[in-house]
Amino acid sequence: LQRPRHQGMAKNTYMRWRLPLVCLLWEGAMIVLFGVFVRFGAEADAHWEEEKREMNLTSDIENDFYFRYPSFQDVHVMIFVGFGFLMTFLKRYGFGAVGFNFLLAAFGIQWALLMQGWFHSFKDGKIFIGVENLINADFCVGSVCIAFGAILGKTSPIQLLVMTLFQVTLFSVNEYILLNLLHVKDAGGSMTIHTFGAYFGLTVTRILYRPNLEQSKDKQGSVYHSDLFAMIGTLYLWMYWPSFNSAISDHGDAQHRSAINTYCSLAACVLTTMAFSSMLQKKGKLDMVHIQNATLAGGVAVGTSAEMMLTPYGSLIVGSISGIVSTVGYVYFTPFLESRLHIQDTCGIHNLHAMPGLIGGIVGAVTAAAATEEVYGKEGFIKAFDFTGVYQKRTPSVQGGFQAAGIVVSLLMAFVGGAIVGGILKLPIWGDAAAENCFEDDVYWEVPEDEESDVYHMHNPDKPASP
Amino acid sequence: LQRPRHQGMAKNTYMRWRLPLVCLLWEGAMIVLFGVFVRFGAEADAHWEEEKREMNLTSDIENDFYFRYPSFQDVHVMIFVGFGFLMTFLKRYGFGAVGFNFLLAAFGIQWALLMQGWFHSFKDGKIFIGVENLINADFCVGSVCIAFGAILGKTSPIQLLVMTLFQVTLFSVNEYILLNLLHVKDAGGSMTIHTFGAYFGLTVTRILYRPNLEQSKDKQGSVYHSDLFAMIGTLYLWMYWPSFNSAISDHGDAQHRSAINTYCSLAACVLTTMAFSSMLQKKGKLDMVHIQNATLAGGVAVGTSAEMMLTPYGSLIVGSISGIVSTVGYVYFTPFLESRLHIQDTCGIHNLHAMPGLIGGIVGAVTAAAATEEVYGKEGFIKAFDFTGVYQKRTPSVQGGFQAAGIVVSLLMAFVGGAIVGGILKLPIWGDAAAENCFEDDVYWEVPEDEESDVYHMHNPDKPASP
Amino acid sequence: LQRPRHQGMAKNTYMRWRLPLVCLLWEGAMIVLFGVFVRFGAEADAHWEEEKREMNLTSDIENDFYFRYPSFQDVHVMIFVGFGFLMTFLKRYGFGAVGFNFLLAAFGIQWALLMQGWFHSFKDGKIFIGVENLINADFCVGSVCIAFGAILGKTSPIQLLVMTLFQVTLFSVNEYILLNLLHVKDAGGSMTIHTFGAYFGLTVTRILYRPNLEQSKDKQGSVYHSDLFAMIGTLYLWMYWPSFNSAISDHGDAQHRSAINTYCSLAACVLTTMAFSSMLQKKGKLDMVHIQNATLAGGVAVGTSAEMMLTPYGSLIVGSISGIVSTVGYVYFTPFLESRLHIQDTCGIHNLHAMPGLIGGIVGAVTAAAATEEVYGKEGFIKAFDFTGVYQKRTPSVQGGFQAAGIVVSLLMAFVGGAIVGGILKLPIWGDAAAENCFEDDVYWEVPEDEESDVYHMHNPDKPASP
Repeated sequence: LQRPRHQGMAKNTYMRWRLPLVCLLWEGAMIVLFGVFVRFGAEADAHWEEEKREMNLTSDIENDFYFRYPSFQDVHVMIFVGFGFLMTFLKRYGFGAVGFNFLLAAFGIQWALLMQGWFHSFKDGKIFIGVENLINADFCVGSVCIAFGAILGKTSPIQLLVMTLFQVTLFSVNEYILLNLLHVKDAGGSMTIHTFGAYFGLTVTRILYRPNLEQSKDKQGSVYHSDLFAMIGTLYLWMYWPSFNSAISDHGDAQHRSAINTYCSLAACVLTTMAFSSMLQKKGKLDMVHIQNATLAGGVAVGTSAEMMLTPYGSLIVGSISGIVSTVGYVYFTPFLESRLHIQDTCGIHNLHAMPGLIGGIVGAVTAAAATEEVYGKEGFIKAFDFTGVYQKRTPSVQGGFQAAGIVVSLLMAFVGGAIVGGILKLPIWGDAAAENCFEDDVYWEVPEDEESDVYHMHNPDKPASP
Repeated sequence: LQRPRHQGMAKNTYMRWRLPLVCLLWEGAMIVLFGVFVRFGAEADAHWEEEKREMNLTSDIENDFYFRYPSFQDVHVMIFVGFGFLMTFLKRYGFGAVGFNFLLAAFGIQWALLMQGWFHSFKDGKIFIGVENLINADFCVGSVCIAFGAILGKTSPIQLLVMTLFQVTLFSVNEYILLNLLHVKDAGGSMTIHTFGAYFGLTVTRILYRPNLEQSKDKQGSVYHSDLFAMIGTLYLWMYWPSFNSAISDHGDAQHRSAINTYCSLAACVLTTMAFSSMLQKKGKLDMVHIQNATLAGGVAVGTSAEMMLTPYGSLIVGSISGIVSTVGYVYFTPFLESRLHIQDTCGIHNLHAMPGLIGGIVGAVTAAAATEEVYGKEGFIKAFDFTGVYQKRTPSVQGGFQAAGIVVSLLMAFVGGAIVGGILKLPIWGDAAAENCFEDDVYWEVPEDEESDVYHMHNPDKPASP
Repeated sequence: LQRPRHQGMAKNTYMRWRLPLVCLLWEGAMIVLFGVFVRFGAEADAHWEEEKREMNLTSDIENDFYFRYPSFQDVHVMIFVGFGFLMTFLKRYGFGAVGFNFLLAAFGIQWALLMQGWFHSFKDGKIFIGVENLINADFCVGSVCIAFGAILGKTSPIQLLVMTLFQVTLFSVNEYILLNLLHVKDAGGSMTIHTFGAYFGLTVTRILYRPNLEQSKDKQGSVYHSDLFAMIGTLYLWMYWPSFNSAISDHGDAQHRSAINTYCSLAACVLTTMAFSSMLQKKGKLDMVHIQNATLAGGVAVGTSAEMMLTPYGSLIVGSISGIVSTVGYVYFTPFLESRLHIQDTCGIHNLHAMPGLIGGIVGAVTAAAATEEVYGKEGFIKAFDFTGVYQKRTPSVQGGFQAAGIVVSLLMAFVGGAIVGGILKLPIWGDAAAENCFEDDVYWEVPEDEESDVYHMHNPDKPASP
């Protein structure tokens, strides 16, 4: 039972100067860069009164704020409460789950406003931002939260900030390639957010492989109340996913349609998840891991196609399949990935984001390829795929091909980027904990002495047992 | 202390094939029915550009999506987080509360889209859906969540799915009778959702009466943290109830008015609930059961009348009364119902939904009967009660009579439907647990071993005590 | 170890008749006053159809409901879930935190509708209310929730209701002086809500100084799960703060701009908070108290200036500074205030609201003084500061001076008002607990017997230990 503690203790997890330095320097850089580049977009600027007149708008309600702000707030909740609480399922890593997610997302949205701004909102040397930029920044950070799920409990906050810096950058490049160069549709981000984010995270965790992780096996599970905290995250992700997939769709029918498709897909996904969760367990009991995660696969899997004419029953089919794939993944693939491929995936993002993200990309490609003027209407067809300007002559089947190419690009970016960033994070300077101290808040957090302290301080010889 | 375990153990709660079968078959049926019937409504269809032109709409903001989507999301939160977490108060039934609520609601909204669609959105052989249908589906499922409250902890997930199937069907029929045949107003569902849902659930639990339920008495209470989880549910229901009651009201002043009336009613309800909670307890201490539930009665009780000219002070009066009635119900009626009428009502839905629902129906009838052209304005009067077409000549007092008839119809549907469905659920094939295993997640869920495991596995001889 | 129990026990905390009496009498008064004064505003009244025609409005979407209702709901969540759960960090005061916050806010919004109505929405002897009034009532109550933070755990529910009655009154007077007499801008309430609320609460807690409070020191800390509950409050406050600061700004660009500035400020604040939390702790570990609170200072500190052309990088600077000030406050000022000035500030509102509120007032004054027609545009300039009518000739620098005067007035109102109300609350008739029973739910709540009961009932000789 006696473990070689000295080995783990040798790791220096002291954050006192490193973490403040990184946070303050980077925030300083943000201030300088924002000062140089970022300005209010026309609809948020005090000159809007004149703008309105020029654009012949008769009402303030035409401001994009009123089209997108409610969806923005829902997305915001998904990023901070949704992802944050979803990861609190671990018995002694709730502070890290919710707190580090908070930290990386708060930094990430600033950096994403800049990176995405340079690519998409840059004019006359300035980045002009509005509510759509805020949503896109949240989206971008969503892909980092996904990757965080793979390495949850095994990394220092500095590593997470470093990963965020690089991943946001790569995300923006990938997004630019897909949306601007390939002219691909991906409003809900099956490819840009989920596929990219998940395979990026899986590659990083592969590089950071810890052979002795079973030393902290006792802390890799949940307790009763931590599972309920995680359900808060699950439900907010599930409920607000229609807002996620519709947040940046075109005004009008596209936003409306995206919400309906996502609503349908998610509903179906719950039933197939429950079915397979029970079916794959010897005693037929439901597993909270599946309920917390696989029920969300339906939202991921319609991310690309939700704004298209997928139709409600198409959404039910996609949602049903993704729930099954995801649950099967938790039961069979995750152990396989860990034992054979040395991919230690704490939250099972392979099942919740990677596979459903691929499904989403493929469904998007097929739905685009199958589009007809009859189904969309003449104008609707052009508007839905933005077949204007140089893309005026693009046909649905060509669009489908480009959509498929988008998946491949996202995967390549994820693998190559993840490998490089994983290599950087492997440097022994970031203060990550020893294997035996993984999944334990006490390493980076002041943890209150409480009634569970005996259990908790088991591996912490520095602190005397509470009296 | 030794209980007759063999008796309870004899019950077969093995779900492995039954639950998956029901989930997969039914989801398959949904896919087929959606494929045959469900299509996007005009405002969610890609043909909307043409539609807009035909309807002379100058802006995308006129899409119903922007009038109702924020309210829809609030209602969605009420159904999944509100009802789900409200029921987590039991010390060892949090997974079942939140998880089974998730399952039944996810199935229910699909079935409700169909059932309500056939009655209300059917044209040329197709059901055309938009955001209002999503809200109505959530509403319909709300009545099932209410009924679930009465049988919480005593039923298998299959029973819940079977109940959902039938209750959604009956709800839709009842709603059709009220809204279309009686031409009754009930935007917040005092009658269709609360009165019907609650008396349906109470009838079902009466039929399913368990004489030996005191065997699981030790698990019928709460623990400190489970009461806090339940408060999450309470507060989200309380905060978003103005959205609930205004979600499907007419655009403009009616939505605005519904929200204000509900806000006022709920605020008043909190004060009278606190007053009576303290007054009715010997030591004058507040009871979390009342705070968690009776504070919401004010939302139920203005469900019918919120969109009418109830006026803010009228709302305060209704809210005050319903808080009192509900709290008194918890203290005196619930024990009486259980001991004398053999109605075992786990969450006390009789106090939170049944009685306030009746109050709501009556207040609605009175408010309608008292309506005058002076108070509503000539046009407002016609619009508020939809006195057009064949109803052009209906007077307020006649409307009041029909409103009252709506209460009676809802009650009849609830009693008859509940009795039949209760009989079906009594069949010994659905896998419900023995009395001594009620209110215990371990029967249907993989439960993590934790520091509370000793308490928890008391009745589970299969599992060895954790070391 | 034996404490002088008789001393504490001598205090009469029996609420049975006092609390119900106050609740019922006051609710009765609300009903009467609402009956005499409160009516639906034009946009919520059934006469809206006619109103629309008179105002030449072509669409129902022009109803203020659609401009403000989503923000209202976010603010509502901040008041009830945000503040309520933020204060659940104490190990045994979760019921009181969430429950008393619920009680005082539910009463406060009614009284605020009246008080603010008399000052701002009074016409022909009636108060006409709409969604903006609901938001303002929530805002007003927000200042009471802030003050509650200082006295959390040390007061009876009656004291809280009495404080609410007076504080709402004083808030409304102060708000009237600032907005109407000084013509000051303060849409997010840095001065009216935070500066006033916090210094009011700090003065009250100073007057109520308890010299023996260390007797309940063991209950002043958190436990692991209570810190996670508190994070729910933190995150909802953090996420929805952009809605808070933009909720009552002018339609269009002002709302849009407020949300962006607040989003930026809050993001920056998280990074500097994390940096200083780690830096100021000997072992470099993060402290949940800081993460739960100081991360929000950025929202407070742009409360006045968010709707102005603060610019995104200006917001980052303000957010960064306020995070630092707030964290430093928790580490150094709070102990100083307690030991030297006898200000016992349970939640550290001095750090989260008082100092950031002052920063917010000053930033607002500076931003106003620096405003130019070039930056705002000719029309935008007039609209932003409402330089119309008698204020037509006011210059930015004069406006800056008036803004600064607004800070001074708010401070004076807080100190004088807090001293008087503190004196009233010191009367020995309100049923507050003895020092040794502070921070303990058992005094005013029925608390379930649970696995932690041994710890809990330590100081409760009336109850036998659970078997």
